[in-house]
Amino acid sequence: MSFDDIINRHGTHSAKWDMMEPIYGVPAQDGIAMWVADMDFRAPECIQNAVAKLHDHGIYGYYGDDTAYRQAICRWMDTRHGWTVDPAAIFTTHGLVNGTAVCVDTFTQPGDGVVLFTPVYHAFAKVIRANNRRVVECSLVNNDGRYEMDFAAYDAQMDGSEKMLILCSPHNPGGRVWTRAELQGVADFAKRHDLILVSDEIHHDLVFPGAQHTPMPLIDGIEDRLIMMTATTKTFNIAGCHAGNVIISDPILRQKFADRMMGLGLSPNAFGLHMAEAAYSPEGAAWVDDLMVYLDGNRRIFDAGVNAIPGLKSMQLEATYLAWVDCSGTGMTREEFTSRVERDAKIAINHGPTFGTGGENFLRFNLATPRALVEQAIERLQAAFADLQ
Amino acid sequence: MSFDDIINRHGTHSAKWDMMEPIYGVPAQDGIAMWVADMDFRAPECIQNAVAKLHDHGIYGYYGDDTAYRQAICRWMDTRHGWTVDPAAIFTTHGLVNGTAVCVDTFTQPGDGVVLFTPVYHAFAKVIRANNRRVVECSLVNNDGRYEMDFAAYDAQMDGSEKMLILCSPHNPGGRVWTRAELQGVADFAKRHDLILVSDEIHHDLVFPGAQHTPMPLIDGIEDRLIMMTATTKTFNIAGCHAGNVIISDPILRQKFADRMMGLGLSPNAFGLHMAEAAYSPEGAAWVDDLMVYLDGNRRIFDAGVNAIPGLKSMQLEATYLAWVDCSGTGMTREEFTSRVERDAKIAINHGPTFGTGGENFLRFNLATPRALVEQAIERLQAAFADLQ
Ligand SMILES: Cc1ncc(COP(=O)(O)O)c(C=O)c1O
Ligand SMILES: Cc1ncc(COP(=O)(O)O)c(C=O)c1O
Repeated sequence: MSFDDIINRHGTHSAKWDMMEPIYGVPAQDGIAMWVADMDFRAPECIQNAVAKLHDHGIYGYYGDDTAYRQAICRWMDTRHGWTVDPAAIFTTHGLVNGTAVCVDTFTQPGDGVVLFTPVYHAFAKVIRANNRRVVECSLVNNDGRYEMDFAAYDAQMDGSEKMLILCSPHNPGGRVWTRAELQGVADFAKRHDLILVSDEIHHDLVFPGAQHTPMPLIDGIEDRLIMMTATTKTFNIAGCHAGNVIISDPILRQKFADRMMGLGLSPNAFGLHMAEAAYSPEGAAWVDDLMVYLDGNRRIFDAGVNAIPGLKSMQLEATYLAWVDCSGTGMTREEFTSRVERDAKIAINHGPTFGTGGENFLRFNLATPRALVEQAIERLQAAFADLQ
Repeated sequence: MSFDDIINRHGTHSAKWDMMEPIYGVPAQDGIAMWVADMDFRAPECIQNAVAKLHDHGIYGYYGDDTAYRQAICRWMDTRHGWTVDPAAIFTTHGLVNGTAVCVDTFTQPGDGVVLFTPVYHAFAKVIRANNRRVVECSLVNNDGRYEMDFAAYDAQMDGSEKMLILCSPHNPGGRVWTRAELQGVADFAKRHDLILVSDEIHHDLVFPGAQHTPMPLIDGIEDRLIMMTATTKTFNIAGCHAGNVIISDPILRQKFADRMMGLGLSPNAFGLHMAEAAYSPEGAAWVDDLMVYLDGNRRIFDAGVNAIPGLKSMQLEATYLAWVDCSGTGMTREEFTSRVERDAKIAINHGPTFGTGGENFLRFNLATPRALVEQAIERLQAAFADLQ
């Protein structure tokens, strides 16, 4: 199998491909789906073998002993991220939207403020609001196409009603890999304002050469207020199995979370566990290494092509396959530039405002697709904005 | 494939087979696992094909349009149960323990009473207590080996603090298929005491010849306080995919539940949806029909063998594959009869007290296993209690 293989996902219940016409009006027939954050690549052989084994066995009963699964997670965090995890600290949630939601439900009260560095992954705000908590937007500073934090400004914004901070690390959208100094700043900020810090590191394996991801637990003095979230699902393109990990080393926070998991009757599905155990292996690691080389190529081609269009500027990704394109230089209204992408180029993308303040003039493009499609997308975009040339 | 095939489940992460030694001390080597409620049979071909198709495709991304899935559920409820379901009334939870938990969380407050007809499926009480609600046990009457309800007694028990009733229909354990008159009694009781009625009908397809299951929505005057729960998982032996349906026709209750699902970030995993759609088909129906013939054979053999042991009495199941054996006639302590089953017969079973009041002298045996194992279990039980002959 090669990342260049074009696999037809139409009619497979794929949200990304089968919903682009009903949601965005981008025709299924010749549209290119570059929105929902999953990849158009087959899962690695090690995961395919795990699914084949389940199928051969043919009995899909209740999953029991998860020791090997926990060990696989610990091994991966240790070897890939230099982070030592206590197997007993691991909870398996029904994906990380669910993980975030259970954190909000468990550790905050209705009316409490939950801080986000925006623009950021849209489901955070959705889940916060659906729990009748308040979204407190701390705007990232766009420093010449690079998101940075401004803690002095954020300090001034806090009024004491904030109880939690949800960090996206690496950041989606924009692809920042926060430096150790920045993460120390986040930790200090969380401490200063007595915030529980939820660090969503779902993109931690999707880091490009030159950047170095630091897991939050490696930052000093944050452990007693830290909730970590990781998953195999982005890394290995298995989001459909809806499994994620919430990892809590503080004993009090851990017990509270365990009680809530029990109260919500949440226990993991067998597919997620079997697939995760297979994924977090040397074979899985080799696949991710290859994947990142391929995505790096896509990113370069996309950035070169898009940045050649006057008025469009793609942020340089340090991680993630989610390009974040600033359209403000076109001088067009949001409706206009969006329509050119959707109607003229026939590309389904995520709209910037969904990600909160700061996203108004952006579009998010998913680059985890065979190179030929990235190239086609570039051609179409250049045609759609040809009058700017 | 035949239900007689003995498939080795050891070392497959099966809770039932791989946890019986750590939990019950029943040796993995030659023990018989008759506890956890899953079956030792392969899933039907239609489900196997669905899994094979997923594997062949190899991309496990986010699931989109669920129209076909909803339609399959509606068709099944209509053709198998004479129950017309509005596709918009269906929620997919992470299994029915999770479904029960979200009901308790959504529709009751801490301290509220939640009524159970005990003995009953143990997770109900677990979930109620984990949410700091009170379990209100209404004892079923054991009328010569048949559970019945005593509403006059239950009326006298209520003090107005009860807000919800969770019914298991058909009933686990004991296998009662409640009659229409009994269900009308339940509905009237719920109305009299202003209780939300959660009807867990997960066993509704596993009904033996002679009994007729009535879905709760067919009972008059309950619709506006009714939450239905169904699943493919017991019927087709796919509990590992952790998917279940909460079906709510009342618009106010439905909206509340929808809000809570959103707040908890719960959306279904792709495997559960693909498998359910495949299961609720004519092929799936034919398989269940064959299954029930086979289970009926197992039940007869088991009952004959157990009832031949003086002091043991197996309740006659009208539904479910979960035999409920009254050991009180042995005159032994619970420790003694349990030890004879676990230590001497080497059979892992569920202990009666877990199911609440009324379960003290019972053991629950899972009969959904190849006939040869049922016969072996009978031989071992007869040997273990030989002194009673
Ligand atoms: C930062 C972040 N967290 C969580 C998710 C989704 O997680 P899950 O599919 O496990 O619910 C995404 C998906 O794009 C994401 O970008
Ligand atoms: C009555 C009842 N409800 C629910 C369940 C479990 O449901 P799930 O596996 O969907 O959580 C069982 C399993 O035995 C059951 O007997």
